[in-house]
Amino acid sequence: MFVLLSIFMTLPPLLLFGNDAPNAVAFAESAGLVFALGVLGILLAYGKPRDLKPRYMFVLTVSSWLIISLISSLPFYLSDNAGISLTDAIFESTSGITTTGATVLTGLDTMDQDLLLWRSILQWIGGIGIIGMFVAVLPFLRVGGMRLFATESSEWTDKALPRMKTLSRGLLLVYVVFSILAVLTYWASGMSLFDAFNHGLTSIATGGYSTSDLSMGKFNSDLILLEATFFMMIGGMPFFLFVREMHGQHGVLWRDQQVRLFVAILLLVPLFLTLYRWYINDDFDLASGYISTLFNVTSVVTTTGYASEDYAAWGSFSFVLFFFLMFIGGCSGSTSGGMKIFRFQLSLIVLREQLMRLLHPRAVLTRNFNGRAVSDEIIASMIAYTFIFLLCFMLITLALASLHLDFTTSLSGALTSLTNVGPGLGSVIGPAGNFASIPDAAKWILCGGMLLGRLEILSVVVVLSPAFWRS
Amino acid sequence: MFVLLSIFMTLPPLLLFGNDAPNAVAFAESAGLVFALGVLGILLAYGKPRDLKPRYMFVLTVSSWLIISLISSLPFYLSDNAGISLTDAIFESTSGITTTGATVLTGLDTMDQDLLLWRSILQWIGGIGIIGMFVAVLPFLRVGGMRLFATESSEWTDKALPRMKTLSRGLLLVYVVFSILAVLTYWASGMSLFDAFNHGLTSIATGGYSTSDLSMGKFNSDLILLEATFFMMIGGMPFFLFVREMHGQHGVLWRDQQVRLFVAILLLVPLFLTLYRWYINDDFDLASGYISTLFNVTSVVTTTGYASEDYAAWGSFSFVLFFFLMFIGGCSGSTSGGMKIFRFQLSLIVLREQLMRLLHPRAVLTRNFNGRAVSDEIIASMIAYTFIFLLCFMLITLALASLHLDFTTSLSGALTSLTNVGPGLGSVIGPAGNFASIPDAAKWILCGGMLLGRLEILSVVVVLSPAFWRS
Ligand SMILES: [K+]
Ligand SMILES: [K+]
Repeated sequence: MFVLLSIFMTLPPLLLFGNDAPNAVAFAESAGLVFALGVLGILLAYGKPRDLKPRYMFVLTVSSWLIISLISSLPFYLSDNAGISLTDAIFESTSGITTTGATVLTGLDTMDQDLLLWRSILQWIGGIGIIGMFVAVLPFLRVGGMRLFATESSEWTDKALPRMKTLSRGLLLVYVVFSILAVLTYWASGMSLFDAFNHGLTSIATGGYSTSDLSMGKFNSDLILLEATFFMMIGGMPFFLFVREMHGQHGVLWRDQQVRLFVAILLLVPLFLTLYRWYINDDFDLASGYISTLFNVTSVVTTTGYASEDYAAWGSFSFVLFFFLMFIGGCSGSTSGGMKIFRFQLSLIVLREQLMRLLHPRAVLTRNFNGRAVSDEIIASMIAYTFIFLLCFMLITLALASLHLDFTTSLSGALTSLTNVGPGLGSVIGPAGNFASIPDAAKWILCGGMLLGRLEILSVVVVLSPAFWRS
Repeated sequence: MFVLLSIFMTLPPLLLFGNDAPNAVAFAESAGLVFALGVLGILLAYGKPRDLKPRYMFVLTVSSWLIISLISSLPFYLSDNAGISLTDAIFESTSGITTTGATVLTGLDTMDQDLLLWRSILQWIGGIGIIGMFVAVLPFLRVGGMRLFATESSEWTDKALPRMKTLSRGLLLVYVVFSILAVLTYWASGMSLFDAFNHGLTSIATGGYSTSDLSMGKFNSDLILLEATFFMMIGGMPFFLFVREMHGQHGVLWRDQQVRLFVAILLLVPLFLTLYRWYINDDFDLASGYISTLFNVTSVVTTTGYASEDYAAWGSFSFVLFFFLMFIGGCSGSTSGGMKIFRFQLSLIVLREQLMRLLHPRAVLTRNFNGRAVSDEIIASMIAYTFIFLLCFMLITLALASLHLDFTTSLSGALTSLTNVGPGLGSVIGPAGNFASIPDAAKWILCGGMLLGRLEILSVVVVLSPAFWRS
């Protein structure tokens, strides 16, 4: 973990130095600091024995994300760009590393390119970070029903370690290849190399940072919207299945129940919404309307957060639909946030089981997901996740409202941070607005929400619980 | 059941004839029809053998509520009062019998008194109806974790039948006594006998219909607000515990975990909200402000739906808080709607269990609620309820939004109908508004929501499921 961490930490400055950078000094300072911390980390790690108890893993995971969020704000804070306060810098970096993509910066189109690049790279790191965490840490921690995806290789025994390394290498390879593909595709479709590079990284990471205040609306190209839809979908799928496809297990992706529902949602919801919009609008161009609907729905469901136009202005039905779509999230094992599709599937399984039991009290029923039996423990852990997700949603909404943000802003702000979508709804933080105008206290609350969401909430709750530190 | 039903049906006309009634003809017609139906019901019931299979119970329960909702709209529809369409009449009666209290009528202060009385009586019948259903039907149906409250007496064996009759008589007695107490208290505190009678019935039923467009604000009396708070709390408590207290099991009410949390919420939330309002307002009278806060919070948590002033105008924090309070609901076994407090407690139990398991994977844990073990079946059934509640909430919100109701109206309208609270939030259906202006289609959707909510949703879903009719 520490080795991986220090590599991540030295990566961004190296990449950044290749570009012409108005804030070179700021980045040099930041990089030096981060590198020193990384080396310190390695030295400390070598000093200690490998203690892989749950308790240690929890602390390590939570503190890693927290520290990286704080440290990666340095370039923003130290840059010459006027008006980035410490709060704004930390908000921007937390939003980046958690692949949320909510921004407090405006005038992106004329901003220093190295800062824009740093935002995209942060999201890209965050993307591979969450994929790695899903494979290596979460199933092991039995958090939020994640044990459903545990294989022997996530048991951290000596025997499983080599297999784990193969998997990690495979994940990194797939991630890098898709990123390069995205960059090249965008470049070939008319973006500048700089725009293509940034959007390529933030598409695969389902991050959503853009180089323009208009987000993907800048390019005004249906082709690019379709390409982005494709790459966001890739980002929202379980990467370990790509690796298994690569290792010759063909069809494993398509047979996955989670992927199937994910694709079905992205096919049906935009189709339905397009027809509805066509029905209520007299002058609605079906073709371009469909592409825009498809793109923006995919952006929200994969929790990317790009926008090609102000979808919050599509009428009340769309508004409410987008609100509920923000909950869903992509597949687990992807770079997406949200509640994740498999949790809704597990809930549906429980619901069907209960309906059957109401009618046939003595029937013996078995639960199956992807051909594996679903234990009571997994269901209970999924429930716990859902309950605490909704609890956090409520508390963050109340906290934001206590700072006098309106109903829609509070509700959608809390949701968009917990699900790492990015933009909220309403006139303030909606797809056409941004987070610059909200009070500093609200920004800190949202930072907390983003980290909670990214860490599947329960991990954080465990570390914060008194029982954790007692024994 | 049929006998009980026909008694209910002949009760309202008898009561109504005692009053001076401008719409006597309408009521006579309705009463005649209802009485005929009741007799028909009895005849049919005597013809058939007592088949107490779950399937039969489900159909009987759901169809009873549906039929009563439709039939009891007759006096509104047949009355001389201009402008009550069939839709409005059915909305008003459904809202009455489900003790929701959402109204499409305006000018209540000058409305024919017999119509006002009919609204209150409907809610009073709905209140005792849901209490009876809770004891006799729901635990038996294993719906939504209700089995937690099953005793031997809800098994419908021949042996248990006499005990069931004692319980029913006790419940009716307690309900009537509290209603009379409420009427007398209100009367003694300055209400007219007519107002006292109406508000007495709708307080205990946690119904919320009033005789004024200003609701309880009409009386402008802190004393009446405090009294109403007390009677709404009574209405939100499990009535079978009152019966057990009456039978000499003293302290059983206060030892009940559900009652404790219910009381704690009603003590702490208004206190906290009062302090917050005091903190942000320069001229805030603590004493009367506290009473008003207490009253309106109690009104929403017990799902009564009275208002003494427009609490939606108390600022963003209150607005959001009231939105979340609408979910909670009172205790099960009461006349309240909502998700019910014990479901949140069960969720908390699961959550605590999961947190413990994350830290101590091998620990053996037991679940307890009110000193009884909580089986996995009860948890699963509670989960199924919660999931389908949220699903219905989402679908109704989307349906309302597709009729171009705004975000806040759609969201709070769906919620207030499912939880049987009554008023929603926002400028249209908020505590200062009413449901008159929304489209007819939306009224029908809300009627469906009210019935779904009152029947604990699952019962309805079971009856509507194809599997139910197949075998
Ligand atoms: K995002
Ligand atoms: K009510």
